[in-house]
Amino acid sequence: MNICINHKRLMKNLESLGRIGENENGGIDRALGSTADEDARNWLRSYWKENMGLEPEADAIANLCLTWKKGQETKPIAIGSHHDAVPDGGKYDGALGVLLATEIMETLMEKQVNLRHPLTVVSFTGEEPNPYNVSTLGSKVVSGRLDRAALEPVKSRDTGESMKSTIHRLGGNLERLETARLSADDYAAFLECHIEQGHRLEDMGLSVAAVTCITGIYREEIHVKGEANHAGTTCMGDRKDAFLGAAELALGLESIVKQYDGVVATSGYVKVIPGEANIIPGETVMIIDIRTCRENLLEEVLRQMDEMTEKIQEKRRIQICRRVILDQKPVPMAEPVVHAVESGCLSIGEPVVLLESMAGHDAANMARVTRSGMIFVQSVGGKSHCREEYTRPEDIKKVGNAMLAAVLELDQRLD
Amino acid sequence: MNICINHKRLMKNLESLGRIGENENGGIDRALGSTADEDARNWLRSYWKENMGLEPEADAIANLCLTWKKGQETKPIAIGSHHDAVPDGGKYDGALGVLLATEIMETLMEKQVNLRHPLTVVSFTGEEPNPYNVSTLGSKVVSGRLDRAALEPVKSRDTGESMKSTIHRLGGNLERLETARLSADDYAAFLECHIEQGHRLEDMGLSVAAVTCITGIYREEIHVKGEANHAGTTCMGDRKDAFLGAAELALGLESIVKQYDGVVATSGYVKVIPGEANIIPGETVMIIDIRTCRENLLEEVLRQMDEMTEKIQEKRRIQICRRVILDQKPVPMAEPVVHAVESGCLSIGEPVVLLESMAGHDAANMARVTRSGMIFVQSVGGKSHCREEYTRPEDIKKVGNAMLAAVLELDQRLD
Repeated sequence: MNICINHKRLMKNLESLGRIGENENGGIDRALGSTADEDARNWLRSYWKENMGLEPEADAIANLCLTWKKGQETKPIAIGSHHDAVPDGGKYDGALGVLLATEIMETLMEKQVNLRHPLTVVSFTGEEPNPYNVSTLGSKVVSGRLDRAALEPVKSRDTGESMKSTIHRLGGNLERLETARLSADDYAAFLECHIEQGHRLEDMGLSVAAVTCITGIYREEIHVKGEANHAGTTCMGDRKDAFLGAAELALGLESIVKQYDGVVATSGYVKVIPGEANIIPGETVMIIDIRTCRENLLEEVLRQMDEMTEKIQEKRRIQICRRVILDQKPVPMAEPVVHAVESGCLSIGEPVVLLESMAGHDAANMARVTRSGMIFVQSVGGKSHCREEYTRPEDIKKVGNAMLAAVLELDQRLD
Repeated sequence: MNICINHKRLMKNLESLGRIGENENGGIDRALGSTADEDARNWLRSYWKENMGLEPEADAIANLCLTWKKGQETKPIAIGSHHDAVPDGGKYDGALGVLLATEIMETLMEKQVNLRHPLTVVSFTGEEPNPYNVSTLGSKVVSGRLDRAALEPVKSRDTGESMKSTIHRLGGNLERLETARLSADDYAAFLECHIEQGHRLEDMGLSVAAVTCITGIYREEIHVKGEANHAGTTCMGDRKDAFLGAAELALGLESIVKQYDGVVATSGYVKVIPGEANIIPGETVMIIDIRTCRENLLEEVLRQMDEMTEKIQEKRRIQICRRVILDQKPVPMAEPVVHAVESGCLSIGEPVVLLESMAGHDAANMARVTRSGMIFVQSVGGKSHCREEYTRPEDIKKVGNAMLAAVLELDQRLD
């Protein structure tokens, strides 16, 4: 079957959704719970109703769903992503995945393709970091990683609004949260299209890739305790400078991970206490983030980090307390979905490229409840989470048709 | 002439003044403008009036003065320090200098010593870092380093009270500020007793020292600009991490100054932007503080720092903008005053120890308008600016008698 997406329509929809939350700099402000979040949901609902004649649904965490051929015996195949955005973000991250899923369904409906499975388009709630401090919120709830007890106390650090009130406003209901929980019986597979957010595809001069694994994310909060003291009267040899200890740790971690491919580390949060020009820092709190798809590599990095910590503690006579605050294991994508994406790429004449995803995605949570996979499309300059984020229309066309072919293959192959 | 201070009385006064602003932990909260600041001033005024029968005066910046034998033809010799304290500070820093000056005057009055010069006890306003963000306030005003235009816009960051209102409350008057300005005709000399705030005297097993120079303080605000980026999808080799650049600078500066004696450097203020665990820092702002009494040493440190900055910029492809925000030159103490302090130490049987002061003091400002000097007394464990600050009673006795002898020598030697 040789059918193609309507590229022009998809680009027009990307423009329309991209105007919702647009700020004066051309970036997009569409965080969870914002007016723009509500507006984007209304836009999607109207589009789905008016152009596709189907009734949108929202689950208890306000994930938006649209199902075609609901009620068939087979389990639906789900496709989609999220519509929220980071502050001053771009119009491709998330939105492209939702709109391409919509376009695929619309194309299949127009062509009256007789699928073996129902097809569901999903737009997840609150995937990005947000003022409620919970990312991939919608997919965490459906996959059982977050429950009502965990969400009830949550408030927006900006407005103070409770999670309960926010979700209610968006069309969900925290009191019925358990009804949103999915089981292995609910979907046959989940496939998400997303911009790469890196520049490996650009470096290869290619457009699309099949994702093999979503990175593990490991975080420690490191509390360095030294001794605050007078910046003038304390000789260099007598100092117990907590900041210099943290600086050595951060640089040491960089050196450790630079020995290997496939692992990155970042010290992105650093607080120096008391933070006065004339006082030697007595404390420093730092959060390190280590990402890799290979668990043995993480182990090796941590082993070397333990050694380094010992040495710095001893040399500087400071205390370094490390606490694991996140240990998300790498999530391999399901073989049948990876295979369907590979076939999809080949069907449009593109080579098969396999990439690991170094960012977290809703697909990682969905992997807990169904066969999950992703297809990446090139990000120009690797830029993402910024208003300069851009993906070329011709690449969008390619990923659209590759994903359409992948959905058709999944429909044929899966039970 | 062989006269001694009344040690018991001095210790009693230290206890009394030390109770003003005492908090539940035993530390002292007596910042500029606080109720405890007012109470300490009232305590001093009452003590001076009731025990010494002299009329306290306040100048336009509310520095407290008490002059004995006012109106003589010779210029007065001034002695003293400050009565304010850092948050949760100790009872010796500043207060000891004011009370010892008081004790010296009281002793000389009791013994009816016929001085050639009038004698003035001074307690300066706001010497310590404070919510108005101006330290050594009182001595900066009298030495012409701060004028009315500079002080009128100043407000407390804690209470919002204006400097004008605060100074009025303390007995000064910002509108008459120029009347507080001293000239070379006003004092014959200024001598300040202060705790060492370091442990060089303790290491030598000694009690008192003559100060030869007050350190220069040089500060730069360093703005490191890299590129904020995704902590997962940005390969290590592609990063422009502003924090790691700042970390290298801070550690490099430490290595540079560790090559030399007599210079210290601190990176006490560090702000990492945006400061999120999952974002590579795009900017970092850091303040470095370098202190030395030797200007050529500062020059050498800065030369090496320029080289290092170049290297880090190139290696990390980041931009490092350095801006000098303070360049206070070292202040040598006046030879006749240093000599008088040396003689004072010898007169009580102590060896002559010459030290540089690595902290700033009111005496550095007074050096702009008169011959200025300092005498240090041992700080146990070098501790200062904390409630554990302590100086032994026997050392207080020694510094008291050495300073009394120094004042008598100055009275004999100076015009």
